Amino acid sequence: MLEELKEEVCAANLLLQQAGLVVLTWGNASGIDREQGLVVIKPSGVAYDGMTAEQMVIVDLEGNVVEGDLQPSSDTPSHLVLYREWEDIGGVAHTHSTYATAWAQACRSIPCYGTTHADHFRGPVPVTRPLEPEAVQGSYEWETGRAIVRAVANNNPREFPGILVAQHGAFTWGGSASEAVRNSIIVEQIARMAAVTEGLAPTVGPISDELRDKHFLRKHGPKAYYGQTE
Amino acid sequence: MLEELKEEVCAANLLLQQAGLVVLTWGNASGIDREQGLVVIKPSGVAYDGMTAEQMVIVDLEGNVVEGDLQPSSDTPSHLVLYREWEDIGGVAHTHSTYATAWAQACRSIPCYGTTHADHFRGPVPVTRPLEPEAVQGSYEWETGRAIVRAVANNNPREFPGILVAQHGAFTWGGSASEAVRNSIIVEQIARMAAVTEGLAPTVGPISDELRDKHFLRKHGPKAYYGQTE
Amino acid sequence: MLEELKEEVCAANLLLQQAGLVVLTWGNASGIDREQGLVVIKPSGVAYDGMTAEQMVIVDLEGNVVEGDLQPSSDTPSHLVLYREWEDIGGVAHTHSTYATAWAQACRSIPCYGTTHADHFRGPVPVTRPLEPEAVQGSYEWETGRAIVRAVANNNPREFPGILVAQHGAFTWGGSASEAVRNSIIVEQIARMAAVTEGLAPTVGPISDELRDKHFLRKHGPKAYYGQTE
Amino acid sequence: MLEELKEEVCAANLLLQQAGLVVLTWGNASGIDREQGLVVIKPSGVAYDGMTAEQMVIVDLEGNVVEGDLQPSSDTPSHLVLYREWEDIGGVAHTHSTYATAWAQACRSIPCYGTTHADHFRGPVPVTRPLEPEAVQGSYEWETGRAIVRAVANNNPREFPGILVAQHGAFTWGGSASEAVRNSIIVEQIARMAAVTEGLAPTVGPISDELRDKHFLRKHGPKAYYGQTE
Repeated sequence: MLEELKEEVCAANLLLQQAGLVVLTWGNASGIDREQGLVVIKPSGVAYDGMTAEQMVIVDLEGNVVEGDLQPSSDTPSHLVLYREWEDIGGVAHTHSTYATAWAQACRSIPCYGTTHADHFRGPVPVTRPLEPEAVQGSYEWETGRAIVRAVANNNPREFPGILVAQHGAFTWGGSASEAVRNSIIVEQIARMAAVTEGLAPTVGPISDELRDKHFLRKHGPKAYYGQTE
Repeated sequence: MLEELKEEVCAANLLLQQAGLVVLTWGNASGIDREQGLVVIKPSGVAYDGMTAEQMVIVDLEGNVVEGDLQPSSDTPSHLVLYREWEDIGGVAHTHSTYATAWAQACRSIPCYGTTHADHFRGPVPVTRPLEPEAVQGSYEWETGRAIVRAVANNNPREFPGILVAQHGAFTWGGSASEAVRNSIIVEQIARMAAVTEGLAPTVGPISDELRDKHFLRKHGPKAYYGQTE
Repeated sequence: MLEELKEEVCAANLLLQQAGLVVLTWGNASGIDREQGLVVIKPSGVAYDGMTAEQMVIVDLEGNVVEGDLQPSSDTPSHLVLYREWEDIGGVAHTHSTYATAWAQACRSIPCYGTTHADHFRGPVPVTRPLEPEAVQGSYEWETGRAIVRAVANNNPREFPGILVAQHGAFTWGGSASEAVRNSIIVEQIARMAAVTEGLAPTVGPISDELRDKHFLRKHGPKAYYGQTE
Repeated sequence: MLEELKEEVCAANLLLQQAGLVVLTWGNASGIDREQGLVVIKPSGVAYDGMTAEQMVIVDLEGNVVEGDLQPSSDTPSHLVLYREWEDIGGVAHTHSTYATAWAQACRSIPCYGTTHADHFRGPVPVTRPLEPEAVQGSYEWETGRAIVRAVANNNPREFPGILVAQHGAFTWGGSASEAVRNSIIVEQIARMAAVTEGLAPTVGPISDELRDKHFLRKHGPKAYYGQTE
């Protein structure tokens, strides 16, 4: 079942590797079929080389395996929290990519230092608060998802398509698994450029709200004029 | 029409990707046919993989689409300002390459720290001033072009074949689209080496005018002796 | 003899190169046959391109060459000390990979700044003390091995699968040669991310013991639930 | 004439590119036939892609072109000074590789922070003094060579197989063109690791003379025991 979605999710996972965002078996991407309420996700700890669509695992929104011979990613509950909370997202990705993870380890949100950032995020890339010890020792992966939702708070997740989980790594989302992975690529590049920027100008501040919104809105929303009309 | 120029502009855009200067669909290059006053430019938001010469868009110097099924790059007006202002340039490129963009985000020009830099720029790589809010909310892409022209000021654009647009990224130019892209490659490498240099010697100053001009003039101008005579 | 182990050790050495951890002929990996008490190791100073299993050298635990036309790696004695000391390891790898070596040159252990680190090390990546002049001028490579053992001290080498040798580079180990190399890849990535983290947050501290153990133990030990059960 | 040497010099130049040390047409390598006193060198400003042995240029030790349709590298005189001064070197290479050039631009020699460095240099990688204005405006490329010789001074060029030319880039040498290029690769890697090391430990000092000589002499000289005996 869901063969097409499995193909797309497998391709999205492979794109994580091709884009240089993963080391060994780290990272994972998933996609959801909203009609059936089923999520397709990468199996846990499986090598990217030779990964096939058939290996993808189907789980329901409570985390029960519906189809698949392998265990789903151990991060599955974090994905599920996001799908349950935000009904208009169709894909989620998680990486330990170098620069995004460094910002996460620094427990810092990424300030909006330029238009590359503003083209994709309508403000800083947020960072979660570190989990309390009880949350770590409890349902850790579910708590991680909840910490993401708390940090996005009242912002629109389509205007903030990713986040840094403190001391951990990046989660991103989008309309599909592949769009979620594209946002992983973008967060890593934003994170790298912001790190170099601070090295060159330690006291630099974020760009103006006008410039940020100009760029965000020329790519997103009803008045967007970047790209091709469909 | 302009089939040869479309081929060259397409190849120049692909070179941006091959040189590692672009992420996803970011970046664009264009070339001009001065006799006809027509510019060939990359379409907006189109993937580099599978890009073809037929997809290139032809616009006139006012920005009207003369030929092409796709929308031209949203940065087209910035390119057009440069072609209108500087009659001896034949190509323009725009990137968000990592180190050049970091300097742009730091709102800093790149000091001439060595002969690699002096081989290609006869002084610092300039940076524009951030745009005023009215310019951002007005004809933003035209204003970006005008900010570039103001920052180059009375300098010869052939001696300063590129610039950093504050909080944004790099624009470069040259005798052709491919030369403009070569200058994008050079600006990124200059930017990377200058960033590392400052990390190693925070108080280092620029090289002497003598050394700078020695290198610039052995590659450029009537007494150049680098490369092959034609 | 030991043809299968030679194949595995050769493949592990080639993986060092494919993973970008070696320059020229630097680095080496070995594996042990515990029943026979024999170690297979890369020959000294041989190019990775065209390396074959037949070139691997067999030595006993005293360092005598048992089979092979080439000299074994000059670092062989360091490997042997580890095999003699820790009976449950099956492979050892040594690299001068960029970031791990930089931490070694800085004579610093790598603090546990995030879950990527905690997934693989149950605490900091340790660093040895610099060798005394007599040790350098004596049986240098044997002394290097002993310094590693002293620095791991009473910790479990399966919970600390690698170390930085001060002013030198990284040694890693595991159940097999290929697992040792995977740990080399992990140490390099941990080292890179930690270096960037300190640049972004110079006063950042390590993660909590709870979070560290949560991640380490979800991947290792009797209650592990990452990956596939076998 | 000198067909074999041309093949080797061409291959050495291509290795510069394959090793990621050059951008565009930057960099060059040469080799000498000591019997005939003739040097084979890369032509000036020619693309690496498609470069052939036939394009290599033969010059005598005064810089006169003996064979070849193209102009020799504009850096040829710098190479010639080294061949004239040091009779036991057989090859020279010059690059603007990123980290080596950053140290050169910082006008700093690279301290010996670890054994990777000591395996190849018996002390710091030296840096020249910046040229005086008269030298820049005079026979600039000859003066560059002389500045290198002055900076190596009474040291053995086989124990210091490369140097940083202040504000410029790296020159390296060796028994052949390919060995000179290998030393370019080594200098770049040493430079990169030293830069990261200083970021992690700003007050770190060089390794002890004992450790430095232990490593240098296990690879070089009569008591070397690294690699294979021939």
